[in-house]
This record gives sequence, structure tokens and C-alpha cells, in this order.
Amino acid sequence: MNVLVGIVGFRGYSGAEAVKLLSHHPNCAPVLLEHRSDGGDEARLLRKSTVKRLGASAEVIRDNNIGAVLLCTPPEVSMELVPQYLSAGAKVVDLSGAFRLGTVERYARWYKEAHTQPELLGSAPYGLPEFYRENLRGKSFISNPGCYPTAANLAIRPLVEADILDPAAGVICDAKSGTSGAGRKASLKTSYCEVTENFSAYSVLQHRHVPEVLMNSGLDEAAFSFTAQLLPLDRGILETIYFKTVAPMTAAEILAVYQAKYANEPFVRLYEAGNVPDLHAVQRTNFCDIGVISDPATRRCVVVSAIDNLGKGAAGQAIQNLNLMLGIEETAGLF
Amino acid sequence: MNVLVGIVGFRGYSGAEAVKLLSHHPNCAPVLLEHRSDGGDEARLLRKSTVKRLGASAEVIRDNNIGAVLLCTPPEVSMELVPQYLSAGAKVVDLSGAFRLGTVERYARWYKEAHTQPELLGSAPYGLPEFYRENLRGKSFISNPGCYPTAANLAIRPLVEADILDPAAGVICDAKSGTSGAGRKASLKTSYCEVTENFSAYSVLQHRHVPEVLMNSGLDEAAFSFTAQLLPLDRGILETIYFKTVAPMTAAEILAVYQAKYANEPFVRLYEAGNVPDLHAVQRTNFCDIGVISDPATRRCVVVSAIDNLGKGAAGQAIQNLNLMLGIEETAGLF
Amino acid sequence: MNVLVGIVGFRGYSGAEAVKLLSHHPNCAPVLLEHRSDGGDEARLLRKSTVKRLGASAEVIRDNNIGAVLLCTPPEVSMELVPQYLSAGAKVVDLSGAFRLGTVERYARWYKEAHTQPELLGSAPYGLPEFYRENLRGKSFISNPGCYPTAANLAIRPLVEADILDPAAGVICDAKSGTSGAGRKASLKTSYCEVTENFSAYSVLQHRHVPEVLMNSGLDEAAFSFTAQLLPLDRGILETIYFKTVAPMTAAEILAVYQAKYANEPFVRLYEAGNVPDLHAVQRTNFCDIGVISDPATRRCVVVSAIDNLGKGAAGQAIQNLNLMLGIEETAGLF
Amino acid sequence: MNVLVGIVGFRGYSGAEAVKLLSHHPNCAPVLLEHRSDGGDEARLLRKSTVKRLGASAEVIRDNNIGAVLLCTPPEVSMELVPQYLSAGAKVVDLSGAFRLGTVERYARWYKEAHTQPELLGSAPYGLPEFYRENLRGKSFISNPGCYPTAANLAIRPLVEADILDPAAGVICDAKSGTSGAGRKASLKTSYCEVTENFSAYSVLQHRHVPEVLMNSGLDEAAFSFTAQLLPLDRGILETIYFKTVAPMTAAEILAVYQAKYANEPFVRLYEAGNVPDLHAVQRTNFCDIGVISDPATRRCVVVSAIDNLGKGAAGQAIQNLNLMLGIEETAGLF
Repeated sequence: MNVLVGIVGFRGYSGAEAVKLLSHHPNCAPVLLEHRSDGGDEARLLRKSTVKRLGASAEVIRDNNIGAVLLCTPPEVSMELVPQYLSAGAKVVDLSGAFRLGTVERYARWYKEAHTQPELLGSAPYGLPEFYRENLRGKSFISNPGCYPTAANLAIRPLVEADILDPAAGVICDAKSGTSGAGRKASLKTSYCEVTENFSAYSVLQHRHVPEVLMNSGLDEAAFSFTAQLLPLDRGILETIYFKTVAPMTAAEILAVYQAKYANEPFVRLYEAGNVPDLHAVQRTNFCDIGVISDPATRRCVVVSAIDNLGKGAAGQAIQNLNLMLGIEETAGLF
Repeated sequence: MNVLVGIVGFRGYSGAEAVKLLSHHPNCAPVLLEHRSDGGDEARLLRKSTVKRLGASAEVIRDNNIGAVLLCTPPEVSMELVPQYLSAGAKVVDLSGAFRLGTVERYARWYKEAHTQPELLGSAPYGLPEFYRENLRGKSFISNPGCYPTAANLAIRPLVEADILDPAAGVICDAKSGTSGAGRKASLKTSYCEVTENFSAYSVLQHRHVPEVLMNSGLDEAAFSFTAQLLPLDRGILETIYFKTVAPMTAAEILAVYQAKYANEPFVRLYEAGNVPDLHAVQRTNFCDIGVISDPATRRCVVVSAIDNLGKGAAGQAIQNLNLMLGIEETAGLF
Repeated sequence: MNVLVGIVGFRGYSGAEAVKLLSHHPNCAPVLLEHRSDGGDEARLLRKSTVKRLGASAEVIRDNNIGAVLLCTPPEVSMELVPQYLSAGAKVVDLSGAFRLGTVERYARWYKEAHTQPELLGSAPYGLPEFYRENLRGKSFISNPGCYPTAANLAIRPLVEADILDPAAGVICDAKSGTSGAGRKASLKTSYCEVTENFSAYSVLQHRHVPEVLMNSGLDEAAFSFTAQLLPLDRGILETIYFKTVAPMTAAEILAVYQAKYANEPFVRLYEAGNVPDLHAVQRTNFCDIGVISDPATRRCVVVSAIDNLGKGAAGQAIQNLNLMLGIEETAGLF
Repeated sequence: MNVLVGIVGFRGYSGAEAVKLLSHHPNCAPVLLEHRSDGGDEARLLRKSTVKRLGASAEVIRDNNIGAVLLCTPPEVSMELVPQYLSAGAKVVDLSGAFRLGTVERYARWYKEAHTQPELLGSAPYGLPEFYRENLRGKSFISNPGCYPTAANLAIRPLVEADILDPAAGVICDAKSGTSGAGRKASLKTSYCEVTENFSAYSVLQHRHVPEVLMNSGLDEAAFSFTAQLLPLDRGILETIYFKTVAPMTAAEILAVYQAKYANEPFVRLYEAGNVPDLHAVQRTNFCDIGVISDPATRRCVVVSAIDNLGKGAAGQAIQNLNLMLGIEETAGLF
């Protein structure tokens, strides 16, 4: 089997990563779908790339037998394209936030605009395979999780399920992301001289990724504090997560909770007690790495969760979802 | 008045910063005190620097009428030199951790070695002028605070004094530092290729700077979680501090607590409610910048505190202390 | 004497550097002149800056007794403002390229647009004090040199004057600049993720700074190859300059040529034979550092010339020129 | 076929890259050969890597049927191990400089130490497949080229062969390398704070890679000027090469020279006339990208040649050579 997979938004960082991953995928081949001219500043090689480039209309999808499309586009473009591509018979993974929050009310509150495809909201399962795998297999349309929520949910939900969190202390997620997480559009905030030798917090306590964590981890809003911060580097997210256990627990005991949940997960890696991942461990991979440190005497715990925001946080996870949709090996093209 | 101020450890990052600041000081002039050869890789200019270079013995101090010395040295070197220089009649600011913890027991626990000058521990006031100014004026010997504790204490103690912290939630300090904070000694951990495009946590819950925060903020150990993390940049510390207020408080109300404490402080700057500093705001300054964000409905608060680890976190604060010792304008040479 | 010096374009990197330098100048004080709203993203401190902010009209200049203005603006804005400010009685240093090339023809060729103030071209001496000092003293209007040409001319002209260059080999200047040299306007080319971990050449053989080097060094166009390249760092220019001497010369002999020219220059520093500067040596200074390496057997020479593009390459040199205009100490505010 | 390939020096940057590439190779599998303990600071994952780790003795090679070894080691270690591994029946690619210069005299001059295996010097072909492919097929021992010489030779030799270089002008190669080129050993020169925001030249006119360029490009020493410079980034080499053509030639005409040479080369990519590569184009690939800019009127030319120093400049090229040795597809594991 060789499925043609179209990428809309292939010049963006997530889109370009998807093209690269699909170029090495055993069952899929990428096709670039040019939706809007965005400047076109590719390398001008004499020998041209063999990746085909087409328009982004539904006819193109049909005429070229494109079996699936990854939308690496802003929410408003995704809302416009999803119904067209589904009608054209393609499977769709949407990497934007358009279909993650389930209701028009939540979308309006956190994205500050009206949702234009409310009827599709119910048919877009949230593509976090470690939690919802069986609900994703064979589906036509999947909403790909946000980068921050992927790292946060994988770290937090097992703790909620195991019922070991002290509610009085809440859960604090101090998150740091590389600059590619802000997308490729030029802006002063992501200009080189503003970012280098700098570190800054933004959207403190009100980031639009918060509801994705609440909905999928089981925490409630009052119990969860989230700060997003910009690192002077290209790619990677590291979240330092603080909580108290209801009873004293060693790091090994907390790790046992994670092991019970993730023993067979191909893309979650756990560290020995007292060790935590750094960004070099996960860059250019589809892994989520998790480490635990605790002080049983005071019940204080720190969990560090790290992913590549363009890998498990975007294009890698999208391909993991694509594999589930297509009924092929879930890890295909991802090691 | 023109006081000669010797710097031991002038090739290290804090030492070099002290030399630069003293070169522009209206009342002081730097003298380099060569304690041990450390490789000597300075620029080989044809026209030589006018900063004098001498040995580091007590005789040199006496013979050259050196009025004060800044020790930018490891704790074991500081413990060796402090008594010699005090005997030679010089005032001393020690930038190491040797004299910050007050007792030999605390020193042994956190620095993992025996203190060799226990009798001097009682005569080294902790040089955080915003808290202990009157106790520092005219003194002969001051122990300069650590970089992380300076940013943390300035942010936390006013909250403790105002009694607005919910004890059940504790205080979490997620701290990030530039690589110069690790000193200039070559090591794999601070090699360029290991640090660039990376971010990593170290000494989680057990950093030796923790007791300095506890002793000077009024928190107790069980209530305080501290994580140190390495940023891929040269200089600057930013601490994201999480807590709950006992009763709902707006950011403006919390800022009023800081204003009451710091209204007349030349080196503490507060931000408008909802705004927080980044590292560019404080690099190459002696400022500590503080901003507050809160969600009164849930009583969750985030305070961001930022300094330059080589400025207010080391050499800048050392000169502020020097000024207090010498009885000159506290801000001299620091704007 | 305390001269009010207005800065137009104070949010740009050169403008902000000028404000910082003037804040410590013994004879001048900065005033911000707001010409056009450019987004205004300054730190929102509770205690406001004491630097005054005014409009940028000629009336403001007159009414506030502003004695001089630094134009840190694009060429078209400089051409609009220079005549207004001169009429208002202010001295003007223009940091743009508008008045550097002397003729409308050269301007049209290299800047690809018509010059709107041809009559002023003759009255704008080129502000490189090391070459033209006597012609700059007391002047009303100075055209501040470009960053690349400053480093190139200081390194090349002494060699031309000493007549030691082999014309068959020509002079090759391989120039590298920090990203702040591209200005603060957001663009994809200077976005963080495009610049970090990257290095790229641009405007090879046709950079608009080439004619400034030709006009002030004495080289002719066929003999001079210039490549501009973007470094993944904030500030600093380093130029590696290759040539052959007509007869074998040691590095020391070539250095003697530079010493003869620059012995009394406060802002040119020469290195011992075989040693060359790096960017750390010149950042945040007004120095131009020059080092020489040669192989007499083959007559091949390499000269490395380094400056801070925002210092000697822009704001620092502008203030050096301002000092000459105002008849005060040339180095005031620059050490 | 599945060949076990041992890597000595797998903790170094080139060694780690080789392990990663071989993990995806269709015909080979990596084995780690632990020669000397170097600190062992790998991630401490609960689920261990499946890459086998063995000792580095000749017996291990024999007993485990290791078919080939990549030596990612310093020259002195390579000289010690090569004869042992060849005797044990393994094919060997040496990534050090030990066997590149062909004679003990050249080695002594440029590496400042005596060669301990002179009898092996004649049996180590220089592994630049684009020039010497037929001489590399099936060989037992190959000396892998240096990083700088690979980029330089691929750019320069076609010009020499086509006899288009003006000898009076010579060839100037201004080379810039990422810091991983200096290896993983901790040193002050490659410490984060010394490299970030810096750029510096080293080994000007006397780099040990010069003779590799002379021997394989056909230039003579007097005609070739080479400067190595350290970029504040992890990986990548970009060389800006200056020369004059004997007669006027357009960039397209010079490109035709390269096309004639490289039309069928899988790992050399040429750019359209007037376009040049940057480092992002080649990082994490085995490509050498070449672009040409010329000014026919003055016969001045600039060629930009870019590679990844750990890819085509080290581990990638070593695997290309390994493929030739083993008689398998030359590109296997490299796209």
C-alpha cells in the first residue's frame, strides 16, 4: 500500500516536518498542496525535489487520489478546508486548534472568534493515542492535540486516574517552548534579536491550551496553573510540573503509576527515579520523556515531561494518528 | 575619595563583571589580584590595559593600600583568604557561598564539606541591602547573596511579611538561569554543544541555594519547592513563582504589598498589573524586576522575578554592598 | 554644558543604543522624538523612565531647545527630516545611508531609488573621524558611516596609503554581521528559527555598502570583493580581509603601518602579531580592533577587523561625531 | 545481508551521529565498542536501548563477527586500533587525521607528533568517493576525509581540472564551522559562554586541514589561503571561496563545470546561478551544496560550499565509504 498524503501549510514548521517524516514513511508519500502563496523562499536547487506540488482544491484531492490530508494551517483555514476534503473522500488530520475543544462555547471563549463548522465538532476525536487509541482507528477525521497539552496530559492524567494528587496544592505546570511553536509568520516577538539571550512568559494563566489539558487530564480549572514561556531555541517543549501526593510517595512509587499506564506505549519513555529528561533527549523524535523527583517527607513532587513540539507535539503525532486512521502499524515512519 | 578595590578571581564571569563596573565607579578603582594562574587567555592587545595587576597576598593588600577586596572565588578559597585580608585591614565582600548559611551544620549539609572558619561565620552579615541595609553600613565583612536567592527572596519575603500566603499550597519557585551562573571552569555540562538548543533541570528540590531562601524569606522547607534550570543563554535569571493567597487578591492588590516594601528602593522595579519582566529588561543592570499576575476567583498567583545573575545576582550587588561598607552613595557605579 | 539630543527611531536597535549611551554622557541628555507609531512594546514599569518623549516636528526641536538630533531612520525618512531639523537650528547626524555616497547617481545605483535632497549631498561630510576628523569639527550635519564600511575602511585604507597591496591579488573582505544589523522590522529572514543554527551569505559582490568602502579606502571596484553574511548572534561585525603584499612583509611590519596611522586614535586597538580579535572583545564598545597574520614567504596576509555594529558601526560613532560637532571631548560618553 | 558495524568513540559527536545513521541502515546494525571510560553521562531511561555494547578488543571483533568498525577517535587511538582490527578481519574506516596525509613527514609537520604506523600509510585510500570511488570499492581500510577539506575539495578541484583559475589571484577559502567540529572534550574555548554571541578565527593560514586540500584539489600551498572560524552553532560548515577566472565567465558557465563533474553524484547539489546555500539546507544530511556568483567584467567569483560537519564531513561520509567497502548501494542509510 502506498497512500498519497497531502500537506497544506507545508512551508510552516509543522508542515515541513510532516513532509520530511512522510518522505521516509514505508506506506505513505507526501504531496504538497499549495493553498495560498506565502512568499515561496525555498532553496533554488538545479536538480528539483521529487515531491509533487499541486493546488489545494477538493478536485485536486479527488483527481489525484489523495487518500489523506494533514492540515498544518491556522484554525480559520482548517475550518474552511475540512468539510471540502472529507466530501472529496480524503481522511483528514487537523493540526490546528479548531476542533479540539468540542463545543462552540469553549472555542469562542479561548480562541476569541466564532466557530464556523459547529456540526463537525462532534465528529473529530481528540488524537492522543495513548488515551484514545481505540476511538481513533479507522476514523476519517481526527483533531490533533496541541503541543503543550500533549506533554501536560501524558504527565498529569495517570496521576489523576491513580487518585494520588493532593487537591489543596493543585497542579502547577511551568512550560517552556522553543520558538518554532509560535509558527513561521514573521513578527517582532519572534525576531531573532528579541528572542536570543532572552526568556519570557506569555499568556500566564490564560493560554488557549489550558482547556485541552483540563478536558483530557481530569483536572479542574481552579486546580491547574499553567505558564507558557519562550525559550531561545528552535524546537522542544519541557514542562516542569509540581504537585503534592495525598500520602508520602517515593519517586519509584510514582513511576510505578506511570509504568502501569505506559508499559506498552512505544512513544512514552520513563526515566529512573531521580532522573529527568532534557530537550536534547527528545528533539527530532516522537517520544514523550517523563522523569520524577519526589520528597516523601513533605509529599512534594516534581515531574518533568519533554517532547519535540514539532514531533509528538505536532507532525509526529499527526502521523501516528494517520497510521491509526489507515489501519497500518502505529509507529510506521516514526522511528 | 578613591578607594583601590582588589578583585580575586577576575578571570571568572563575576570577577570580570566586577572589574568592568569598578572601572566606571566614581569613588573606586579596580586592581587585579592574581591568586592562582588559571590559564591567562586575555586579548593580546599592543596597548595594554591600565588596570594594575598584583599578587593576592596580605602583604600586597597592605603595601598597596588596597581598601577593599571582592572575592570572586570558590568557597574554599574564600575561607582561606578572608581572615588574611581582614587582618591586613581591608574590607571584604565574599561572593562565594562560604559565609551565607550562618552555621557549620548548615554549611556541611548543603556544601558537603567542613567549614574551616567557623569563628568568622557570626561576623558576616548577609548582604541583601533591601532587607538588611542598616546592618551593612560601615561593616568590614559582608557575605554576598547567591544569585537564585536574591531573585527569590526579593519576590517572596514581602508576601510572607504581609501574611497573604495560603500555607496549604506552598510556594513553588521554578528558576531558570543563564550558563554564566555555572562559572567559567570548563566542563562537559556547560560545553557549547551540550547547552545550545537545550534546556535542562538540575538539583531539583535539593539545590544548595534553598537554605538561603528559607533563612531570608521566612518560608519553611516543607513549604518551598525550588527547581534550578539551565537556559541556553549567557546571563540572566528568571524565576516564575507560584502560590495562592489566603483570600482573593487582584494583581494590583498584591503589587501594593510590593510597593509598600520597595517604594524607595533604587534597584527594585515593579510592573503594571498583568505585566511581567523578561531577561532583556535586566541584563547588564543591577535591577530586580518583579511582575504579578493573579486570578482572584481561584486565588492562584504567579510572580515573575528577574535579575542579571552577574549583576544584582553577583558583582552588582557586591558593589552595592561595597558602597554601604564604604559609606558612599549606595547606587554609585551601578546605573 | 548640557545639550539635549533628540533621537528619532529610538525603538530601533541603533536608536535604543544611542539613548543608552547618551543617558551616561557627561555633556548631553537624550530626548525621544516619536516620529511614527511603531507598535510601542516597551516594558510597562510602574515607575516611569525619566527620559522625556516628544513629537518629531521642527517646532518641537525649536520649542524645546534641542541642540542636536540623531536620525536612526531609513534613508527616505532621513531625507525628509534633515532639512527641517537643520532649519530649526539643530545639528544633525544621519545614521542612514541617504547622504553617504555623495552623488545622486551613486545613490540611485546602489539604493535603487531617486534621491530627494540632492542639494544637501555636498554639505554632509562622511563621519569617519579617524580619516576626516578636522573636517567634522563644529559641523552642522554629518553623514554617519555604515557598519560594514567602518570596519573595512579602518583596516584597508592604511594599506592603500602605504602602497603595499599587490594589485593582481585584489582585496577580499569576507564580512559577518550579527542580526541586529538588519534592523528591528519583523521579517522572515530575521526570524529566530530562520537565523538560529544557521549562517548565510547575502548581497554577494553587490552590497550597497561597497561604494562606501571604495570611496574612502582608495580601492577600485574591480580590486575589491565583498561578501556580507548573517551570524546567529545579536551584535558585532567581524571582517576577514585577504590580500598579498607587493614584497614579503611580516605581521609586525604590517602592524607598523597601522601603528603609524593609529598611534593616537582612542578607538582603534591593534593586536600583537599573529593575534586577532573576536567579537566578545568589541561588543558594547566603540572600539575597532585589528589583528594581522602574514606568511612572508608567499606574501599572503590576513587582517581581521572587528567592531560592534551598534557601537562603532552606528550609535557609538554617531556620538563620536556629535562630540566633534559640539566641540567637546571626542571620547565623551564612549568609554 | 546484515553487517554488524562497531563504533569506537560513540559518545563523541561524530560517533553518536554514526550510531544514529546505522540504526536506520538497511544492511548494517551498530554495536557500541567501549574503548575507554569517558564519564558515561547517557540518559538513564527505564527501558534500555537495544544497541549492544561491548569492549573494544580485537577478540570482541572476532567473537561477535563484527564486520566493520568506524573509528571516531583521536589519531593516536586510531593508530593503535587500526592494525588490531584489520588483523581481526574487520574492515575499518578511520575518521581521525592519522592516515590522511600519506607520509610520515607530512604527518609530523601538521600534527606535531610522530606517526606510529608508517607501514599502514600506503594502504589507506582517501575516502572522498566523488573523486576516488573506484579505488574505494571493496577495500579493507579507508581514511575518512576531514570536514573542512571535504567542502573545500568538492568546490575547488573541478575548477583546477577545468583550468579556469587565475594563478595570480590564488584561491581564498574563508571557512566557518559549528562548534561540534571541535569535538566533545570539555575546554574553555568551546564553553557555552565563550562561544555564544561570539565569532572567532583560529589556526589562520596554518590549519592542519590545509595539506588535505592541497593534496586532493591540485592547488599548491602558495596559492591557497585558508581561515578556520568558529560559529556560535552546533553543526555545519560553510566555506566562502574566492578566486578569479582566467577569462570572463558567468556563474552559469562556472556551474557547467560543476555539472560536468557532478551530474550523477547523489550527494552533491548545485544551485541556480546567483544562488548559494545556507547551513539549514545541509544540516542532518550527507549533501554538499554548492552555489556560484560571479562578476564576468572583473573575473571575480565567489563559490559557497556547505556541508554538515558531522554528516558529509564525518559520519555520513564514513558510511558512504563503508557502503563502498561492503559492495552495497552507496547511498544506503544516507537519505
